[in-house]
Amino acid sequence: MNNEGMLIVLSGPSGAGKGTVCSKLLEKNTNIALSISYTTRSPRPGEKNGVNYFFTDKENFERMIKEGCFLEWANVYNNYYGTPKKFVEEKIKNGQDVILEIDIQGAKQIKQNWKDAVFIFILPPNLEELKRRIEKRGSETEESLRLRLMCALDELKALSSYDYVIVNDDIDKAVEKLQAIILAEKCRVYRNKDLINKMH
Amino acid sequence: MNNEGMLIVLSGPSGAGKGTVCSKLLEKNTNIALSISYTTRSPRPGEKNGVNYFFTDKENFERMIKEGCFLEWANVYNNYYGTPKKFVEEKIKNGQDVILEIDIQGAKQIKQNWKDAVFIFILPPNLEELKRRIEKRGSETEESLRLRLMCALDELKALSSYDYVIVNDDIDKAVEKLQAIILAEKCRVYRNKDLINKMH
Repeated sequence: MNNEGMLIVLSGPSGAGKGTVCSKLLEKNTNIALSISYTTRSPRPGEKNGVNYFFTDKENFERMIKEGCFLEWANVYNNYYGTPKKFVEEKIKNGQDVILEIDIQGAKQIKQNWKDAVFIFILPPNLEELKRRIEKRGSETEESLRLRLMCALDELKALSSYDYVIVNDDIDKAVEKLQAIILAEKCRVYRNKDLINKMH
Repeated sequence: MNNEGMLIVLSGPSGAGKGTVCSKLLEKNTNIALSISYTTRSPRPGEKNGVNYFFTDKENFERMIKEGCFLEWANVYNNYYGTPKKFVEEKIKNGQDVILEIDIQGAKQIKQNWKDAVFIFILPPNLEELKRRIEKRGSETEESLRLRLMCALDELKALSSYDYVIVNDDIDKAVEKLQAIILAEKCRVYRNKDLINKMH
């Protein structure tokens, strides 16, 4: 069995419940690390630097892009988001799986740079529920809510370039499916090329 | 979500423990049906017609081949084995998953005829354990034991054409992995093409 970790990319429209699914997964699996992104957006109430994101300014972020510090980066709603390359590479080399909760722009970059990554799309059960969940956050103005909902609909088109889709109509079942996908992927033949050699 | 069942092909050398893994899986999952093969080989002690196999003679088997009754068939150790097409098609149409425990010759035919099938290879933990398990069966002559062990080694080469590999060093963990693979495969994007349409 391959002793390296695996890169898991989790995307889906705002309000699909990626964050909750991720948290529950991490509670149950100590060998999975959540990648912490850099961002230039302002912290939401309760968000902490170094926990939810590394909050930084535009100037520093653009310097990091030039220095090749990001595995992927994107500009979403006029804010930068990026995944620090070093963090991910070190965890995976040490046998930990790393989960990235990123948007579809970032996922496209990962797909080009990391051939063995697993791409999972989280969907809300239906569009009414999606709208309700985005509104419930309460941190949105009417304009940003409208923008977010439009982008969410647009993101659904990216589904076909992902490997797996999970409909988050039940949080425990969604986490169970995510765990099953991770366990199954570790059994993929192409991830276990050295098995027969080890049998002798 | 697609309401059709899924075809799961399980192969691996004699003594890898396919039978035990299958039985445990079926105990836990009422929505999975085990395909019962036709064979021309003699029943082993304890084997029942219509449960382990449908035992038939060479003449009848060859007639069924001509009439296209088999989804796959093979000649192994001078005996015919075949999977009845009608049984599998009906179960899958009714939303049940069907598991086929077949050898690599049969699996190759399935791969050509059933594009959505999932191919899983079961391995014993090592070669010494493989030999011990085959000997333990006690139903083998020295010559057939030697033949079976040689074929087992030869079958390992087919691993690369399978999707998943499970090392059966712990029966419960092997069954857990098999269940995870089945659940994960149901989340594959290409099996859920109609999801976005259903969201609207």
